[in-house]
Amino acid sequence: MKIALSQLNYHIGNFESNTNKILDCIRKAKSEQTDIVVFSELAISGYPPRDFLEFDHFVSKCEDSINKIAKECDDIAVIIGSPSFNKEPKGKRLYNSAFFICNGEISKITHKTLLPNYDVFDEYRYFEPNRKFEIIKYKEKRIALTICEDLWNISENPLYVVNPMDELVKQNPDFIINIAASPFHYKQAKSRKDILTLNAKHYNLPLFYVNHVGGQTELLFDGGSMVIDDNGKIFDELNYFEEDFKIYDLNNTNSVCRIKNIELGIKTIDKSKIINTKSEIQLIHNALLMGIKDYFRKLGFKKAILGLSGGIDSAITCVLAVQALGKENLKGILLPSRFSSEHSIKDAEDLANNLGISYEIIKIEDAFNTFENTLRTQFVGLPSDLTEENIQARIRSLILMALSNKFGYILLNTSNKSEAAVGYGTLYGDMCGGISVLGDVYKTQVYELANFINLEEEIIPINSIIKPPSAELRLDQKDTDSLPEYDILDKILYQYIEMLKGPDEIIAMNFDETLVRKVIKMVNSSEWKRYQTPPILRISPKAFGMGRRMPIAAKYLS
Amino acid sequence: MKIALSQLNYHIGNFESNTNKILDCIRKAKSEQTDIVVFSELAISGYPPRDFLEFDHFVSKCEDSINKIAKECDDIAVIIGSPSFNKEPKGKRLYNSAFFICNGEISKITHKTLLPNYDVFDEYRYFEPNRKFEIIKYKEKRIALTICEDLWNISENPLYVVNPMDELVKQNPDFIINIAASPFHYKQAKSRKDILTLNAKHYNLPLFYVNHVGGQTELLFDGGSMVIDDNGKIFDELNYFEEDFKIYDLNNTNSVCRIKNIELGIKTIDKSKIINTKSEIQLIHNALLMGIKDYFRKLGFKKAILGLSGGIDSAITCVLAVQALGKENLKGILLPSRFSSEHSIKDAEDLANNLGISYEIIKIEDAFNTFENTLRTQFVGLPSDLTEENIQARIRSLILMALSNKFGYILLNTSNKSEAAVGYGTLYGDMCGGISVLGDVYKTQVYELANFINLEEEIIPINSIIKPPSAELRLDQKDTDSLPEYDILDKILYQYIEMLKGPDEIIAMNFDETLVRKVIKMVNSSEWKRYQTPPILRISPKAFGMGRRMPIAAKYLS
Repeated sequence: MKIALSQLNYHIGNFESNTNKILDCIRKAKSEQTDIVVFSELAISGYPPRDFLEFDHFVSKCEDSINKIAKECDDIAVIIGSPSFNKEPKGKRLYNSAFFICNGEISKITHKTLLPNYDVFDEYRYFEPNRKFEIIKYKEKRIALTICEDLWNISENPLYVVNPMDELVKQNPDFIINIAASPFHYKQAKSRKDILTLNAKHYNLPLFYVNHVGGQTELLFDGGSMVIDDNGKIFDELNYFEEDFKIYDLNNTNSVCRIKNIELGIKTIDKSKIINTKSEIQLIHNALLMGIKDYFRKLGFKKAILGLSGGIDSAITCVLAVQALGKENLKGILLPSRFSSEHSIKDAEDLANNLGISYEIIKIEDAFNTFENTLRTQFVGLPSDLTEENIQARIRSLILMALSNKFGYILLNTSNKSEAAVGYGTLYGDMCGGISVLGDVYKTQVYELANFINLEEEIIPINSIIKPPSAELRLDQKDTDSLPEYDILDKILYQYIEMLKGPDEIIAMNFDETLVRKVIKMVNSSEWKRYQTPPILRISPKAFGMGRRMPIAAKYLS
Repeated sequence: MKIALSQLNYHIGNFESNTNKILDCIRKAKSEQTDIVVFSELAISGYPPRDFLEFDHFVSKCEDSINKIAKECDDIAVIIGSPSFNKEPKGKRLYNSAFFICNGEISKITHKTLLPNYDVFDEYRYFEPNRKFEIIKYKEKRIALTICEDLWNISENPLYVVNPMDELVKQNPDFIINIAASPFHYKQAKSRKDILTLNAKHYNLPLFYVNHVGGQTELLFDGGSMVIDDNGKIFDELNYFEEDFKIYDLNNTNSVCRIKNIELGIKTIDKSKIINTKSEIQLIHNALLMGIKDYFRKLGFKKAILGLSGGIDSAITCVLAVQALGKENLKGILLPSRFSSEHSIKDAEDLANNLGISYEIIKIEDAFNTFENTLRTQFVGLPSDLTEENIQARIRSLILMALSNKFGYILLNTSNKSEAAVGYGTLYGDMCGGISVLGDVYKTQVYELANFINLEEEIIPINSIIKPPSAELRLDQKDTDSLPEYDILDKILYQYIEMLKGPDEIIAMNFDETLVRKVIKMVNSSEWKRYQTPPILRISPKAFGMGRRMPIAAKYLS
């Protein structure tokens, strides 16, 4: 039996382009006499469709696409994910379904049982869980068809009280198919392989797994669809960070999985800049690249603008954007003030020249003087403080947004995760932008990225890497005037944000008590700021944004 | 049996103040020989605690509070909501629990069965649903203890496949207690009464209901705890929009509920400005007042600033803030430009004078000229467009934020829901602020609010109400240059946003097809803007913010 895995990059709600892409793959699979072609979870709508699902009109559009696709499935079977209406009188309006289509019609609809509703997931918001378990019979084969999370309840402390495969296995399936929407973070590819191989081994069944690929605003899908044999050994993987399509041949002895790889070339995202690797920092690099590229493409934009301070955050953001969008689509703006050092301007210019992007220098001194004048009556006799620092940051964002509005750029936000965590930034100032590239990357990881980018040649001026970080909003300012050293800060932040440790547990790890309490207080007191910041490309298991939902007018460790 | 209902305003995560408030009520109830005192759902933590629940430290703090409270329950029983750890090996980490405390210890823990996970609710994100049903026996009475949503599955198309009361009623309870966290919207008080009376009638049991009161950032809890007899007749209600505490006497014939009201005075939020009414617009007025007041109080702020344009949105925001915070805590700033009309300045000054608040006039002309100069090279030869309009809006926000930073004001956002819906506003400009007061109030409702506020005297200058709405960012600009008339626009928006109708359904209601498609496209194309706006006080069944979650880089009706 020939089974094709179709790992595509969908555009949420763009039924026309998604359906065409899917039909294209079906035709390719047919031309190779494939028996079944498999697409990922909610492929029809793109993932996550979020509250579009609340519109009957949206779900009907999904049905229309399914029907259109069914018409082309005369001599091939298709497995594809789509929302479907729950026709029972009880329960939520929808199911998260896998459609089994053959002979030109919908042959069976299987629903997802385990609905992830943690971190970035909201599936129980929309979907009724499946409670009936039935394998699919096709061409003498018995298929255990499952959807993503359905295979993830196999640990020692299961999150759910049922396990769909335990039910399906009673019906003697020949193999497992899992269609997924499993987003990237830097540890996820490994977790995913562990869980999937564990399933194949535990149930002693071959497993065909199809994931999404592509950036969906914050969520980055890394692909990595795969085929696992019944011993739990990975037989083959599809590519990471790009579209891919492969056909496998499964023989008739069910206990062993012999698979012949027939790779078909289909249009990929952009292979040239993707580095194939397993190191965390390189994975992060790849994911960010894809995230930038898809954010622009899916919104119909080409050109980006950003402020170049000469610092490391804007330098890395700029390099990634050049790699994702092309140097001709990047515009760097240097916005020096009276507090900008000579080397900052030079470092920024060196970077722009190294990258070959166009840049301009726009001084903010006149604007700053004007606001000092405008507010003279109100501020008379008062010392300069954070207010004046914020004014500078906001003048810069005003200029960047003006250029963005006039010429159709998207402004790239350059804040890193350490700053975002402790609120070290100016709301409506340097916290502006259409998308935050580094908002899930701690400062210490930013340095790692810099070293990685500079591995072969000095793209980022070395001075941007070695000089002490500074916002340069007052004379001789350093980040360490307000914050601990980043290598300490990031460790505390990681324990609090990613590991969800309380203050006592973190202190017990030999961090200074006063510092730990101060850092946590800074994090919890900055929720109001983070609430209004751009979406952040998610690369960690716990990013700010949709996966971390905090009250604002609260009082806890703050 | 004497039963006390304790309707309190909790501060999320502020265990000290919440526990003290609870203990205070327990002591008052004891002094009246009360048998049971009932507090609301998740009272210990405040509602919604959101992702604080992911921290074991946070849940342990809840346990500490419960234990502290238990010590004072030597001769009284207490029912109170708190998260609790799930000790089973399977399922989610926590339960949403009701603790039954008596004789100085936790006597029983009942868990919530139905976990709302729609609109603003995320309970399935944290909690394992209850699957065991057991009534509580106390002093010869049999109590069906339920938590909020547990009673809401009684409609013809139930959202959940189980109904907890159908299980509990098998054990012959004498009455129902429901502890809740049911937030306000302008139709919710009626829905709540309908559902609760239906339960009492259907099960033929008296019902004691305790809700939260107070503002929790976006979510506004209106209180309205109540006692319903076994015929489904409301015997008594606690106050709306303020803390309240009452003791009832339930006699021994279970079929009839005789209740004696013993009201105890406890500190209320602020009664003076609350208007007792059932008209939607007055309810909205009350809710917004409470929302502003609690947002400031719970964040530890007193003073607000806002830009006064002479228009109706800033006028209403200002009036509500004065009512919530006191005129001495409000600062109005007039920020006229070359495009501001004479009457706008006069209208804003009249408003400030009517309210007796201090105000200042800060002209933005110099700053605007400076930016024109600063950007002369970049913009040479290009016509003035939206960019220049946005620059003005951003200069204003820069000035307002500077005053906010220097003097410790919170900036009030004055955008209305119609503008927010179609993206008619400048991000980082007039879309700034710590809290959006009118972001869930359509422009046509804003006019209703104005008329209501002006019922007895002209507080809002009549000219602000009758003149055509204008952003005054270019010569002779009117909102209707870019938008349809608000009475048409708001009707289309309501069908799309609140009623979740698709374009075809709305067109079928006799709206112009081109207009409907244009409006929906404006809504769907503005998600990126709304993503970065302040939290919005929620007064409708579907507000922008946590209750409406949309993808950004999508393509659906856009």
